[in-house]
Amino acid sequence: MVDVSATPLLDTVDVPADLRKLKPADLRQLADELRHETISAVGTTGGHLGSGLGVVELTVAIHYVFDTPVDRLVWDVGHQCYPHKILTGRRDRIRTLRMGGGLSGFTKRAESEYDPFGAAHSSTSISAALGFAVANKLAGTPGKGIAVIGDGSMSAGMAYEAMNNAEQAGNRLIVILNDNDMSIAPPVGGLSAYLSRIVSSREFLGLRETLKKFARRLPRPMHAAARKTDEFARGLTMGGTLFEELGFYYVGPIDGHNLDHLIPVLENVRDAEEGPILVHVVTKKGKGYAPAEESADKYHGVQKFDVITGAQAKAPPGPPSYQNVFGETLAKLAETDERICAITAAMPGGTGVDKFAAAHPTRAFDVGIAEQHAVTFAAGLAAQGMRPFCAIYSTFLQRAYDQVVHDVAIQNLPVRFAIDRAGLVGADGCTHAGSFDVTYLATLPNFVIMAPADEAELVHMTYTAVCHDSGPIALRYPRGNGTGVALPETPELLEIGKGRIVREGKTVAILSLGTRLEEAMKAAETLEAKGLSTTVADLRFAKPLDEAMIRRLLTTHEVAVTIEENAVGGLGAHVLTLASDQGLIDGGLKLRTMRLPDIFQDQDKPDKQYDEARLNAVHIVDTVLKALRHNEDVGRVGDARA
Amino acid sequence: MVDVSATPLLDTVDVPADLRKLKPADLRQLADELRHETISAVGTTGGHLGSGLGVVELTVAIHYVFDTPVDRLVWDVGHQCYPHKILTGRRDRIRTLRMGGGLSGFTKRAESEYDPFGAAHSSTSISAALGFAVANKLAGTPGKGIAVIGDGSMSAGMAYEAMNNAEQAGNRLIVILNDNDMSIAPPVGGLSAYLSRIVSSREFLGLRETLKKFARRLPRPMHAAARKTDEFARGLTMGGTLFEELGFYYVGPIDGHNLDHLIPVLENVRDAEEGPILVHVVTKKGKGYAPAEESADKYHGVQKFDVITGAQAKAPPGPPSYQNVFGETLAKLAETDERICAITAAMPGGTGVDKFAAAHPTRAFDVGIAEQHAVTFAAGLAAQGMRPFCAIYSTFLQRAYDQVVHDVAIQNLPVRFAIDRAGLVGADGCTHAGSFDVTYLATLPNFVIMAPADEAELVHMTYTAVCHDSGPIALRYPRGNGTGVALPETPELLEIGKGRIVREGKTVAILSLGTRLEEAMKAAETLEAKGLSTTVADLRFAKPLDEAMIRRLLTTHEVAVTIEENAVGGLGAHVLTLASDQGLIDGGLKLRTMRLPDIFQDQDKPDKQYDEARLNAVHIVDTVLKALRHNEDVGRVGDARA
Repeated sequence: MVDVSATPLLDTVDVPADLRKLKPADLRQLADELRHETISAVGTTGGHLGSGLGVVELTVAIHYVFDTPVDRLVWDVGHQCYPHKILTGRRDRIRTLRMGGGLSGFTKRAESEYDPFGAAHSSTSISAALGFAVANKLAGTPGKGIAVIGDGSMSAGMAYEAMNNAEQAGNRLIVILNDNDMSIAPPVGGLSAYLSRIVSSREFLGLRETLKKFARRLPRPMHAAARKTDEFARGLTMGGTLFEELGFYYVGPIDGHNLDHLIPVLENVRDAEEGPILVHVVTKKGKGYAPAEESADKYHGVQKFDVITGAQAKAPPGPPSYQNVFGETLAKLAETDERICAITAAMPGGTGVDKFAAAHPTRAFDVGIAEQHAVTFAAGLAAQGMRPFCAIYSTFLQRAYDQVVHDVAIQNLPVRFAIDRAGLVGADGCTHAGSFDVTYLATLPNFVIMAPADEAELVHMTYTAVCHDSGPIALRYPRGNGTGVALPETPELLEIGKGRIVREGKTVAILSLGTRLEEAMKAAETLEAKGLSTTVADLRFAKPLDEAMIRRLLTTHEVAVTIEENAVGGLGAHVLTLASDQGLIDGGLKLRTMRLPDIFQDQDKPDKQYDEARLNAVHIVDTVLKALRHNEDVGRVGDARA
Repeated sequence: MVDVSATPLLDTVDVPADLRKLKPADLRQLADELRHETISAVGTTGGHLGSGLGVVELTVAIHYVFDTPVDRLVWDVGHQCYPHKILTGRRDRIRTLRMGGGLSGFTKRAESEYDPFGAAHSSTSISAALGFAVANKLAGTPGKGIAVIGDGSMSAGMAYEAMNNAEQAGNRLIVILNDNDMSIAPPVGGLSAYLSRIVSSREFLGLRETLKKFARRLPRPMHAAARKTDEFARGLTMGGTLFEELGFYYVGPIDGHNLDHLIPVLENVRDAEEGPILVHVVTKKGKGYAPAEESADKYHGVQKFDVITGAQAKAPPGPPSYQNVFGETLAKLAETDERICAITAAMPGGTGVDKFAAAHPTRAFDVGIAEQHAVTFAAGLAAQGMRPFCAIYSTFLQRAYDQVVHDVAIQNLPVRFAIDRAGLVGADGCTHAGSFDVTYLATLPNFVIMAPADEAELVHMTYTAVCHDSGPIALRYPRGNGTGVALPETPELLEIGKGRIVREGKTVAILSLGTRLEEAMKAAETLEAKGLSTTVADLRFAKPLDEAMIRRLLTTHEVAVTIEENAVGGLGAHVLTLASDQGLIDGGLKLRTMRLPDIFQDQDKPDKQYDEARLNAVHIVDTVLKALRHNEDVGRVGDARA
């Protein structure tokens, strides 16, 4: 039970400078108030809860010890930044988190000078902090780079690349490893095992011999400080050799909820003359809020909830989510096909791979936050005759683009890509939008790209992907629930590169890819009511295009409109290219492409985002009518194709 | 001096099974013959020499000990695979390396069952080998995965991601770290320093105590083997803790040129019941060929050379290369601008950053093979007010695509991308072609994308990029030498999004982006001779497009053709989208887009590759004439726009 009551100390803190006026003895209470305020805010808005609660004391300690914003603090991923936002001038807006027009759920440069680097994808913080540190070093201006990075984020290669280059920054760079043994799903791999060994080691309690050995390797001021500060000295007793091998001074592990430990250690680290330094802090996700502590996974990202009981608002009952339809379909197909495997990069639940893993544990692979490895590992599996599905969000697949090109497409290996979160995604905003995958995949030779219009189509396409052994194939589908259509008992094998006519008309043709089909059908009704007979085609495939169907639609209708949940360069561009290649535009073609706009759209409800993107039914109607009018404006009715 | 004489033993070896019939005592001579054959072949063809010579003994030992191709051998990068190709049925074609229709300079699945996984980009081998190992483990079929990876490739995050997941494979996975302290340029970073410490340690010679400590941690069969094999035991005396922390059994370091050491160790590793195992082998790049040993960097990739003297064929004198024009221009501009920095990912020479580094060492950063880090590090520098240039080949920038999207484009940070090797690249083939960058960058909001038509334009664009502080900007240019135009004394600040008319005509408009301009001008001459008055525009910018110019050209000429050194989804797609958005196609538009074909093109001379791609002058003429004829075919002359 949490008492969300008065916050007298927190009320005096607008920015970190205010925090620094407090006495050290007051910080414990401040942290408690900050925790309560965080719980209360997220109870109202929903969002990431557990990760923020885990770093309440760390947030207080960092802003107390370091000179933010001159010292550049970079929160990895950024979903733990709500307490940070409360302490850095944004408490008045904290109950607008993740809402349209409100605060971002991540750090964001445009919001505050205390957010020097935005985030949302993991493992970027060390590189960015190193950039800040080196820039200040070159310019001779004050300011360190401080990265706070979770143990899960450490599994991404990018973090390792940055650590391997950290020596450039000297004592300007401080990496705080926030080890809560839990990223989103339980972490995996050798690094995780390594960290567990450190934390569980008997040596954590202090072996004098080991201490001496490591103290000899320390820069002198730290060595002196080590004698003074027992917590610091205890940290030194541990190996941390992996980080030391990469050139860091390792300090830790430290209890990340004990301000009496944290503050003197961070002060020592701040004043050290040598570096870079890695501070290993152990925290508990959801700390201080019993429901979140007890079920860290369920409180990673939450709906609005009752602060007293912890009960989360239930999503209204509805059709199944695309991710679960995918996971369950694949699990079922794998019952009779031993070659099917599923690979996720730390998102078993979000991708539906958890459903597959439950049924086929030996054929499910959670590789951690390691999309590059995931893709090339899948390529290796495919080269040895397996039928691997890489289930990765559209936005995260960007991180494995070279592996998609070099290891999969060039070798024409049948890796299946199950690309979730295609299109706009709502509260997570532009960093999580899946806006580019049709573009960046369709430019590659050998690729087949599908997008289901509903969850029944997803079943067919999952099966079609299973059967496609001649090269890479991707299926992209949105976040959220399906349309509620009945799921097929038996999946259908779709013919590669063939679309379907959903509604036949004469004057207007709407060529849809993906789940805008519903809006296309609504638009068709409206157009029909205006006397414009309308065909709606579900192209199903962005590549290869259904050339025969497209050619027929373009040459027998007065206006044609493509629509997709993807930015420029995708379906519309490919249809235009086809029309140009075949000379279809020579005789005049009222063809328009509707696509995501050339801006990064902020978070909002998905339907509002699609409204801003002008991709709803009303916009289709508008586009068609404008195209027809344009045609009249230039004084031409009918054309050579009639 | 090398004696390229008879190769009696090598003559008996067509495939590894033949090799395995030899007595161990014969392997030394076989290796010598293989080395001679490699030198002789590369003397004829040019190519990668030093890296192959460094692994001659390793190649012999692996094929002798392991059951290739059932055991899946994956060479990282693959440029060290010439001796492997000679031993695996391809000796008869070894003197066609890197030539059109000849053997690839890398491993390639289509060439041989002994190349189970193609390569060319670095650091993919462990992931792929893990895929093979796990697939066989799941299927219960024999076959290990063996990755041979250089120390330079170990700096890429992808290798770390794979190592972090290696435990899945158990003893099915063997990673052979080929440590030659030299990737292409000297390696950098903490990992390199770590490896140097291992190799230089006194403990290399064997401390009994340390041996005991490590032997206790070994699986028993290996422990027993260790007692028998002195070389193996010696290897065990070393720490290798970084790899052990990630879950590997570490064995090494071992002299990679001593077959008497290599073979028993590999036999033990092969027969070990536990794993995964990392074998640390130390080799010398260029081993056994004095000119290459003495100058490892100059013999990494070579022209044809005289085997006796080592003298390389000189490239004919010509205009400066694009990379050097870029590097020298940036170095000069940095004399008066302290904010300019340059970042390379292990390619200082190839990108021209070496020229910059020579003049401004503190502002040049070679981050190793770590493109992801390079880009986000640059974003951090930019966020702190620097003017960073990320100089990365087009094909390698794919590896940092998410960082380009998430850290640069979304935050609209002014990182400058100097993208070398755009378009087709000749002997390195499709894995190194820069075919997709216009597509994958132009789909992103906020990006400015330029492509110079010649080296003088590159000077202007480099300067324009320096001055562009409002967001990300890219300049892409090809491999090889410029056209020979005079370089400007003073660089010109180009207006963002404005093209230039190079030649004014009336009937045909050619809209060129990049260095196809020369071909466009040739085509214009031919067309003019046929009575078709031709305009040639150098668009300079793929994004933002020069809308006013394009609109004018499309509406005042009978035929318009775009041309670019990029695949579908790039310039042509964007021009078509613009024309469609503005209704320009409604009245009929004879617009064609010329682009790289939708295939991965094999290596050949660049002009032949462009011939295959149908992007030379003759093809432009052909495209124009066909478009005009098509126009006649459909019976329409002139149109509403006239």
